[in-house]
Amino acid sequence: MNLNYCLRRACTLYPNAIAIRDGARATTYRETGRRIHQSASALRNLGLQKGDRVATLLLNTPEYYELYYSTLVSGTVIVPLNTRWNVRDIAFSISDSGSRVLVVDRKFAPLVPEIQILAPALETILIAGSGESDDGMLPYNALVDAADPEQHAWDDPREDDLAGLFYTSGTTGGPKGVMLSHRNLYTNTLHAMYVLGLGPGAVWLHSAPMFHIADISNLHSLSMLGAENVFLPTFDAEETLRLIERHRVTNLVLVPTMINMVVNHPNFAKYDLSSLRRVLYGASPMPLPLLEKAMSMFPCSFTQGYGMTEASPLITALEWQDHKLENTDRKFAPVKSAGRPVMGVEVRVVDDNDLDVAPGVCGEVIARGDNVMQGYWNRPDANKEVLRGGWLHTGDLGTMDDEGFIYILDRKKDMVKPGGENVYTPEIESAIMGHPEILEIAIIGIPHEKWGETIRAVATRREGAGVTEEQLIAWCRDRLTHFKCPTSVVFVEALPKGGTGKIQKNVLRERP
Amino acid sequence: MNLNYCLRRACTLYPNAIAIRDGARATTYRETGRRIHQSASALRNLGLQKGDRVATLLLNTPEYYELYYSTLVSGTVIVPLNTRWNVRDIAFSISDSGSRVLVVDRKFAPLVPEIQILAPALETILIAGSGESDDGMLPYNALVDAADPEQHAWDDPREDDLAGLFYTSGTTGGPKGVMLSHRNLYTNTLHAMYVLGLGPGAVWLHSAPMFHIADISNLHSLSMLGAENVFLPTFDAEETLRLIERHRVTNLVLVPTMINMVVNHPNFAKYDLSSLRRVLYGASPMPLPLLEKAMSMFPCSFTQGYGMTEASPLITALEWQDHKLENTDRKFAPVKSAGRPVMGVEVRVVDDNDLDVAPGVCGEVIARGDNVMQGYWNRPDANKEVLRGGWLHTGDLGTMDDEGFIYILDRKKDMVKPGGENVYTPEIESAIMGHPEILEIAIIGIPHEKWGETIRAVATRREGAGVTEEQLIAWCRDRLTHFKCPTSVVFVEALPKGGTGKIQKNVLRERP
Repeated sequence: MNLNYCLRRACTLYPNAIAIRDGARATTYRETGRRIHQSASALRNLGLQKGDRVATLLLNTPEYYELYYSTLVSGTVIVPLNTRWNVRDIAFSISDSGSRVLVVDRKFAPLVPEIQILAPALETILIAGSGESDDGMLPYNALVDAADPEQHAWDDPREDDLAGLFYTSGTTGGPKGVMLSHRNLYTNTLHAMYVLGLGPGAVWLHSAPMFHIADISNLHSLSMLGAENVFLPTFDAEETLRLIERHRVTNLVLVPTMINMVVNHPNFAKYDLSSLRRVLYGASPMPLPLLEKAMSMFPCSFTQGYGMTEASPLITALEWQDHKLENTDRKFAPVKSAGRPVMGVEVRVVDDNDLDVAPGVCGEVIARGDNVMQGYWNRPDANKEVLRGGWLHTGDLGTMDDEGFIYILDRKKDMVKPGGENVYTPEIESAIMGHPEILEIAIIGIPHEKWGETIRAVATRREGAGVTEEQLIAWCRDRLTHFKCPTSVVFVEALPKGGTGKIQKNVLRERP
Repeated sequence: MNLNYCLRRACTLYPNAIAIRDGARATTYRETGRRIHQSASALRNLGLQKGDRVATLLLNTPEYYELYYSTLVSGTVIVPLNTRWNVRDIAFSISDSGSRVLVVDRKFAPLVPEIQILAPALETILIAGSGESDDGMLPYNALVDAADPEQHAWDDPREDDLAGLFYTSGTTGGPKGVMLSHRNLYTNTLHAMYVLGLGPGAVWLHSAPMFHIADISNLHSLSMLGAENVFLPTFDAEETLRLIERHRVTNLVLVPTMINMVVNHPNFAKYDLSSLRRVLYGASPMPLPLLEKAMSMFPCSFTQGYGMTEASPLITALEWQDHKLENTDRKFAPVKSAGRPVMGVEVRVVDDNDLDVAPGVCGEVIARGDNVMQGYWNRPDANKEVLRGGWLHTGDLGTMDDEGFIYILDRKKDMVKPGGENVYTPEIESAIMGHPEILEIAIIGIPHEKWGETIRAVATRREGAGVTEEQLIAWCRDRLTHFKCPTSVVFVEALPKGGTGKIQKNVLRERP
């Protein structure tokens, strides 16, 4: 089975159901399917062949939805880029993936000249949205309008064919392209059907970024059911509330940071949220007080998903019925966990030799299932490491209780997650060490009410050096994607070190 | 992924949950898993190797449950035999599958000597249940008690490994073994999760025969959730009601014939059925009046499954929310349909050249998905025919409306379904044509209140012959499995024939 089936199913079984609701405009699955076939023809008309990569730098829009499926229908491979990355990371991902085409929103057009310099192999740039095309960029919509929907029959990719290359932040050496096959994403779709709480008449709000797997992976479940898609181009708390009310949204995914902004919005009570059935949350730890507040304010149930791009993404889910606010003073209350493995995914907690640890003992969380990625694009060494023994090594440290609930306790990999984005500290440390006045550096995450975590640099200066906090942050801004930059710098006399000379970040994290 | 995962999941995540409830005895998944591993060791101790077939002639019992999983864990292949077949069909299936071992319930012990004569290659017979073993039969339970549960680690069969050979009635030449792989049955499990209505605390009553795919396929869904299994050894309407009340059963599968017996039972109202959440029904057409009656009497929702052993088995489902008793005077009201394709299965309606017919036009229902069988065991010619073009040809004639609801209208194959059992008329016709006084014969199904359909023979006698209805039925009883025998015989002067001389069964069926 493959992902094209999901759309074909909708077009066959639910041709008159609304696929896309965009303001006052509603498009049926029949019309959407036709448009997607036009888009697929347009891509092939650019000379793209089966397996060629198409990068996208798009907000949450109907065009992104259309393009996501049209890459699948045309047999090409989508490379959804994080719109919050800096040009360097964007260009790196384009070059690394060998993308021949890039589709950008008008908003990102100003970045194009620099992208073209840094990724010179890029052949074609398409610009989405309405209006005239800018210098050298082709108008995506005009090409689609002119294309023949009959040119591409429904084809049937093989299940191991690559469906998408999803770039995630890497520890070093730039973002890594996660290779997800049709089977990977399709399997996750079946796994998700049981936990998502989607039913007849479902209306989904794409509120989390669609370049992230946490939202886009649900597209297929929605197609299978003939459900509606509503789009929030960039996250905004009040706009989320407004769209839920306007389109009678039933389901959506929000990261804890977003939930925090929504429940604290002064106009929260002004909106009718009675259509909501289920909020899916995840991507970063959920503080219990925030969960309690959200559960008391939203008129629906909650499900937590724990996963990662490498798992397409679901690994575990804390189902709605396990959101019980009792015994929360205990260290291990299910509501504080990431839930149980979703059906279809096996999870173990292991020691450094990949041997199971006993329930209650902390180890690395590893997972196996048909949803686990084929590997990182062009990274054989990383693949050997992360997929050793046929198990995905998540890098998360946790424990499983004797009822199968998984508690994520820490991260094995040196990572901070501001607002749910994976940021590996070596990349930041490497950038800062380039500063001539810095002697030693350690990057840690510190708790933050709004962002879950925020990035702190703890540094020692060279003798006589006078670099300031502001200067060092500015240094990072010139070199790193915005959300990877420290929000605070603490200068110390010396960094705490263990016997082997390794910096003890746990000591730094415990300091006030 | 494979089926062993389903049980391993239960033993890992729900070790203390009740797997089996048998009278006053309750067994946890931890204990059941241990027992299954002992059973697997016992099978291997008999000299069975990976891929060897183990036939079973068992009622719905905890031992069958255990044995079903222990064949999977030991890497052998189960061959569940229809306990209502005659010795000839049973022995044929044992020989055809090359089964080395047969496990029988004590009830079927009297058949064993004849089975051994007809299936001489059979090496070992195990007898289930308690008490001493009979001549030459080994006591299954004693062998299991003595076996080492540690002997077999959880192994991981490959997804294309054969899991079971499910024999179904064939048109000619004896029953056919449907080869279902781990992937086939596992995929159906994921498909079923969305439609079964299973949730936390599910208790399943195995009321339909577990040698049939319609019940046994649900075992895996139940394991995935850590749900309870309750067993009704042979169907009985009042015992069904009693067990639902006693064990607070939430879900079960019933064929229409069984529903009919249950709702018409004089003691229906005496039982507390408030625990019920969902009744799954299928295997033969559901008369609308019976469905209406059942919906008014059972305190739960209904889901219809349409499928066949060859599809592991689900092809379509009429979900609970589509059980709307409105517009039922229309020819095509959804509640009269078999529902829509389940998620993961593609369905088309085609003409004799396998080309799609328009919505509303009658054609053959064909299906595709990872749940479709590998083929019939040792029947390359039948496989070429039934799986041509990569699609399972169901032999059912039907139509799809423009919302994807499938209506089953007739059967392409010459088949009658008394009580939900597939019976191919050529087998009966062939047996009757052996009678020296019969000139011509046609077997048709006629509607029957209790059995859905019953078998009628319409025959012409040779000149001067005086064979009676009773004599002809007795002739069949000596040669055919009981449920394949006609319940009535009508003698006529001549059978209606078409231009090519083919008997027009449709004309016969329309006669009063």
